[in-house]
Amino acid sequence: MQEKKNVVIIGGGTGTHTVLKGLKRYQDQINISAIVTMADSGGSTGRLRDEFGYLPVGDVRMCLSALASEVDEHEELLRELFLYRFDKGEGLSGHNFGNLLLVALTDLLGSEEKAIKAAARVLRIKGEVIPITNQSAHLVATYDDETQLVGEHLIDEPTNKKITDIFLEPAVTISKDAKKKIESADLLVVGPGDLYTSLGAALVVDGVGEAIAATNAKLVYICNLMTKRGQTDNLGVAEHLALITRYLKRVPDYVLANSTEASPALLERYQEEGEWPVEINIDVTADKFIVDDLMTDEIIKTNAGDNLRRSLVRHDSQKLAKELIKLL
Amino acid sequence: MQEKKNVVIIGGGTGTHTVLKGLKRYQDQINISAIVTMADSGGSTGRLRDEFGYLPVGDVRMCLSALASEVDEHEELLRELFLYRFDKGEGLSGHNFGNLLLVALTDLLGSEEKAIKAAARVLRIKGEVIPITNQSAHLVATYDDETQLVGEHLIDEPTNKKITDIFLEPAVTISKDAKKKIESADLLVVGPGDLYTSLGAALVVDGVGEAIAATNAKLVYICNLMTKRGQTDNLGVAEHLALITRYLKRVPDYVLANSTEASPALLERYQEEGEWPVEINIDVTADKFIVDDLMTDEIIKTNAGDNLRRSLVRHDSQKLAKELIKLL
Repeated sequence: MQEKKNVVIIGGGTGTHTVLKGLKRYQDQINISAIVTMADSGGSTGRLRDEFGYLPVGDVRMCLSALASEVDEHEELLRELFLYRFDKGEGLSGHNFGNLLLVALTDLLGSEEKAIKAAARVLRIKGEVIPITNQSAHLVATYDDETQLVGEHLIDEPTNKKITDIFLEPAVTISKDAKKKIESADLLVVGPGDLYTSLGAALVVDGVGEAIAATNAKLVYICNLMTKRGQTDNLGVAEHLALITRYLKRVPDYVLANSTEASPALLERYQEEGEWPVEINIDVTADKFIVDDLMTDEIIKTNAGDNLRRSLVRHDSQKLAKELIKLL
Repeated sequence: MQEKKNVVIIGGGTGTHTVLKGLKRYQDQINISAIVTMADSGGSTGRLRDEFGYLPVGDVRMCLSALASEVDEHEELLRELFLYRFDKGEGLSGHNFGNLLLVALTDLLGSEEKAIKAAARVLRIKGEVIPITNQSAHLVATYDDETQLVGEHLIDEPTNKKITDIFLEPAVTISKDAKKKIESADLLVVGPGDLYTSLGAALVVDGVGEAIAATNAKLVYICNLMTKRGQTDNLGVAEHLALITRYLKRVPDYVLANSTEASPALLERYQEEGEWPVEINIDVTADKFIVDDLMTDEIIKTNAGDNLRRSLVRHDSQKLAKELIKLL
């Protein structure tokens, strides 16, 4: 029997969730590790972070749920429960059950690391979810008007200014586990995800660039489908690639970009908020570019409390996973 | 192989928890069902009840945790988690994790019954936890000065008045499952527990008296160790038995009463709050009285948020279970 390959995904949020869900089906061939951004400061996660003083749990929750076993009804229920969001209750409304589980476990077990491992066991997840750092820090963005904003959730708000750089305050160091996973990876996947607030926030952790430089893994960047207002306005694949390369400190070996168009009705809703498809404005004839239909046809359902558009332009987890597995 | 006997406990709260924990070790000989009082209206349970409109979950939580499997560290952690109480977080502080789990499951699955079954599966409990009623009602107490109080948690507060009767408002009916369990019981255990707010609140549900009359089960009453201010001031075993008989509408076949004395230091702390040992003020030579050392020597640890005395006069779960098993 061939030894399993190590596939490592860096990120957090919906994009990483999509990649993990797809890869989960290939677990007879690969070990999956998710290395998670720890700069989240908004919503339920932000409130818990402020009140308990633990590391932010939201992105960890997303990754755990993506990798959760769904073999039977009971496991499916556990996964649903983990993603459940309270929509009533003073002070409770808006909190995710999974976040509360992680906070309670952190308190009981004494560290976020142990809490994540325990939650992984409850959800019978196949794979590992590892914080990129075990230290607490907030994301800081510098803008073209020389102002700064502190806090991931504030930087995430639409703005007409342009981010020129990001860093973490205080500077924090890559966790031992994350370093080891990156260095022993066969395939290292970055994206899709918010360029600054999700991917960049992970890559600016001290030691991450060095680990990515040190690994023999093939490095894959999955480019976003849509621009994000206040972060990547007017940027095409060329600029996305240039920016991610700046934070990776290494040129990706492969770039996955979508070739299809979303429905006009959907696009219109994005355009109302100033967001557009990421244009393929670069010569993609080189082997390193994999340009194909990577978009889902599914109508994405979101939770009532999620405050998100009811249907979204999203990557298809199976299409992404298929392309990634081919690269092994 | 002999068929397993059906042991059914009616109650809720700490006393029932103690009995269940003891009986759990005899699961090769018995099937255990806990029929739970549903009148709780205080604390975390009361807040959730008000805000979500579901049945109160606190006593269910206690019974589930008592019956939870503790075979390995992982299961022990799940049990701890289920009992965990948040002590920080605006609106979150004071909530039990187990309560939040039951509320989330009720919302996801559409009924408290299904939620309890799902939680039981997560905790791998051996036995069943069944609400005495699936309908929502509040406990009402009538006092000797002809005033009334509505709400279990208010009636539970110390007072100098004397309860003359209790009922539920609105009148609610025994659940099908509870009825079936009582009727097919071999041993039916009532107590220990607060005479009015815990045991009485279960027994005044419509149809419970009829089910107890209809069953061939031996009926056991476990008398409390200490009086409870505002509920059972100055009452001995004789008066406890008379009162519980009034609500059971049947004379218990056996009465378990404790024969030992708690330490003077402990008793002093109770006396400061106006509570005293329940005196054996009845002729206990008849076979129906089982008078023995039923008290625990353990120092009872309570959770930081529990707001309870650090060490308490409590029944010993193993001593109780041993006596109960002898009655089968």
